[in-house]
Amino acid sequence: MTLQDVLTKIDHDLPQATERLLTLLRIPSISTDPSYKDACETAADWLVSDLLSMGVTAEKRATPGHPMVVGHIGQGAPHVLFYGHYDVQPVDPVELWDSDPFDPQLQDTSGGRVIRGRGSSDDKGQLMTFIEACRAWQAVHGSLPCKITFFFEGEEESGSPSLVPFLQKNKAELSADLALICDTGLFESRTPAIVTMLRGNLCEEIVITGANKDLHSGMFGGIAINPIRVLSRILSGLHDDHGRITLPGFYDGVSPLPESLRSQWKGLNFDHTAFLADVDLSHPAGEQGKTPLEMIWSEPTCEINGIEGGYTGSGFKTVLPSNATAKISFRLVGHQNPLKIRDAFRAYVTGMLPPDCTVSFGDHGASAASLMATDHPAFEAAKDALNDEWPDAAAYVGCGGSIPVAGHFKNVTEMDSLLIGFGKDDDQIHSPNEKYDVESFHKGIRSWARILASITD
Amino acid sequence: MTLQDVLTKIDHDLPQATERLLTLLRIPSISTDPSYKDACETAADWLVSDLLSMGVTAEKRATPGHPMVVGHIGQGAPHVLFYGHYDVQPVDPVELWDSDPFDPQLQDTSGGRVIRGRGSSDDKGQLMTFIEACRAWQAVHGSLPCKITFFFEGEEESGSPSLVPFLQKNKAELSADLALICDTGLFESRTPAIVTMLRGNLCEEIVITGANKDLHSGMFGGIAINPIRVLSRILSGLHDDHGRITLPGFYDGVSPLPESLRSQWKGLNFDHTAFLADVDLSHPAGEQGKTPLEMIWSEPTCEINGIEGGYTGSGFKTVLPSNATAKISFRLVGHQNPLKIRDAFRAYVTGMLPPDCTVSFGDHGASAASLMATDHPAFEAAKDALNDEWPDAAAYVGCGGSIPVAGHFKNVTEMDSLLIGFGKDDDQIHSPNEKYDVESFHKGIRSWARILASITD
Repeated sequence: MTLQDVLTKIDHDLPQATERLLTLLRIPSISTDPSYKDACETAADWLVSDLLSMGVTAEKRATPGHPMVVGHIGQGAPHVLFYGHYDVQPVDPVELWDSDPFDPQLQDTSGGRVIRGRGSSDDKGQLMTFIEACRAWQAVHGSLPCKITFFFEGEEESGSPSLVPFLQKNKAELSADLALICDTGLFESRTPAIVTMLRGNLCEEIVITGANKDLHSGMFGGIAINPIRVLSRILSGLHDDHGRITLPGFYDGVSPLPESLRSQWKGLNFDHTAFLADVDLSHPAGEQGKTPLEMIWSEPTCEINGIEGGYTGSGFKTVLPSNATAKISFRLVGHQNPLKIRDAFRAYVTGMLPPDCTVSFGDHGASAASLMATDHPAFEAAKDALNDEWPDAAAYVGCGGSIPVAGHFKNVTEMDSLLIGFGKDDDQIHSPNEKYDVESFHKGIRSWARILASITD
Repeated sequence: MTLQDVLTKIDHDLPQATERLLTLLRIPSISTDPSYKDACETAADWLVSDLLSMGVTAEKRATPGHPMVVGHIGQGAPHVLFYGHYDVQPVDPVELWDSDPFDPQLQDTSGGRVIRGRGSSDDKGQLMTFIEACRAWQAVHGSLPCKITFFFEGEEESGSPSLVPFLQKNKAELSADLALICDTGLFESRTPAIVTMLRGNLCEEIVITGANKDLHSGMFGGIAINPIRVLSRILSGLHDDHGRITLPGFYDGVSPLPESLRSQWKGLNFDHTAFLADVDLSHPAGEQGKTPLEMIWSEPTCEINGIEGGYTGSGFKTVLPSNATAKISFRLVGHQNPLKIRDAFRAYVTGMLPPDCTVSFGDHGASAASLMATDHPAFEAAKDALNDEWPDAAAYVGCGGSIPVAGHFKNVTEMDSLLIGFGKDDDQIHSPNEKYDVESFHKGIRSWARILASITD
């Protein structure tokens, strides 16, 4: 039996593998919304059951939040741990979906056949690529080529509050030689990517309160403080006119891009015009003087992800609201310290408050950026494996998203992480009409089989 | 039969009058929300029926929006037109109400007995004070002392789009010698007020759009424009550091307060500390150097009444929204031109747009400020009548709210308006738990009977 037999088995079983993914996608496991708690349990149960059916010793493990799924199978070195997350983003604005987000559909599009539904790309479809690769390997060989630990969480989209405590509590069990993480994308449709740097993320919520109730702007307008106005001033002060973030000490730990990386990235010929045109934009909106790839991979950001206050229904209401709220996130790079930045942010907001206003802060997670151990031999082995599967050679890339688990694996269990994923820029993750290309799913499964072969050679 | 007989009848019939008001308050006639369209019709029907029961020739009159109610009764000079509005504000945030906004309750509070419910003070309770005064007069005398026209609209809380066209179309029928408007408040609980100046109002809605869909801030954060950030910059630029509004030409037509008015207002001994303390505030937040009464009566304002964008549910979502929206209103004074200010506002917003952003504007009404004809003999007659009813002498006051109908009456039908109302500062109009004091209702009815007597002497 050879790798080719496994790849042939994968090709043959693709319809069944797709059906399994559709079943998982039907479970509305939105982790950030407490009303979907039961669905998160159901998704975890489904994964345990699926792993058990492959002969994996798998269990659902309770946490103070949504459960973890842990499973073990196989023998021998290296011991690899595969991580994915079964929770998904909320679906609003749901009216912009062309179909029910949790009634996934196979659709033929101009870009090929896709699996449409919330979580198809982020991260259920990606998570299943590895499971399906293992299932095929097991079916062909009767065993797996090394010891494999499956580790799935259900809180990735809501700040992973239970992750670090769980890793600490189960450190021995979860300390493998290498972590494989499938939650990233292709560089472009012909070019797979291995992530070498990940931005961190700091998520804050603020509520500014003025009067003890909503007021009538006819009676109180002009004399009473307006919390939306206060909030607008606070938010507009976070960037200067060049797009640079103004918090004191914010750029501590941010180094200029090394020349070697700059020239390597230049060689990728990133088509930012096409990247932006896909969403009807044309101007890179980041800090002046930075290249587009720097803006999304190696520069920190401050974004307002949500804002609300006063009357937001149809028509008009001349209300002076009692409070106004915003959700703000910072993508962090290099050695920026998320806790120091949180302190600086909170001090800034507090310092901007006029008399009669108070603020309350909500903490939605903080993680530093990660730099991968590209000198680990698995990186070159995986690159070779990907080169065999895809038309163009694999690229070492940065990643604008925050995948804090890589940092936690390093800090708690001393594991290096290999981040390889098959999502595409147009997958619309976190947006309406999320999809995953059937080609991503299929070649993703095949890629993992090749990688398993290459790192156990 | 004397005025005293009418007042005695009013006192005797107060329970029945209160029951009628409660019936009207049960109709959820929220004009700004299209889903309450039928309720607005029902409220108009109820008023027609109530007027008919008093012998008034009353009809519901269709408009492109919610209907008007017009009724006539009586003979002789002066011909007075009474205006009120039967529509009410939305009730959100409904969770802050202690009882159903549309299941009105009589409650005993530390401040006396109150009628609790949406519209109790603004404006159904006020509107009914005049109807009840006429009902008692009619019951005692068998007729009314002069020709009276009742004119009720159902769009006051949504910009009165049908008002001016309706006035123009029915100019002859609605041109009385004097308009009586009951939609304002007491100066304080012992002191009635006659309004001599009204702020105008300009209401605008803006939607800032960037990308053609919501984006993931991991993938696009740093390179894609964030419409909430753009909106925050726009809104924060509307005031300078002294609280002065920055739009070019905004203060054209605003005159300094005349010395005579300044000294008269000083004599009112307005307790702004208590006024603000009632809503847990302590600092007058208007333009530096203005007195508290100027801030609410004679200075223009710019307020953000609502803002929304991105993810506003529980938890966190690292979305870059496609668009963000705000509702902004300007209270106008003196001879400020609302249409010129709208142009200046829209030019400012458009000028603040970065590349890739577009804006759409929504128009929610525009009206200039009004100065009342205080030399009209009805003003002194009404003042004397109020002095007879209330413990302290009536005051000539400004009014922070916008009651554009007074300007429209002047412009279209050449009527002067006498604005007298019995609301209190703590009525929580436009807010949760709106109430109207039973004393306001009772003495309001008695006040109108006295005023009818005084102006027809």
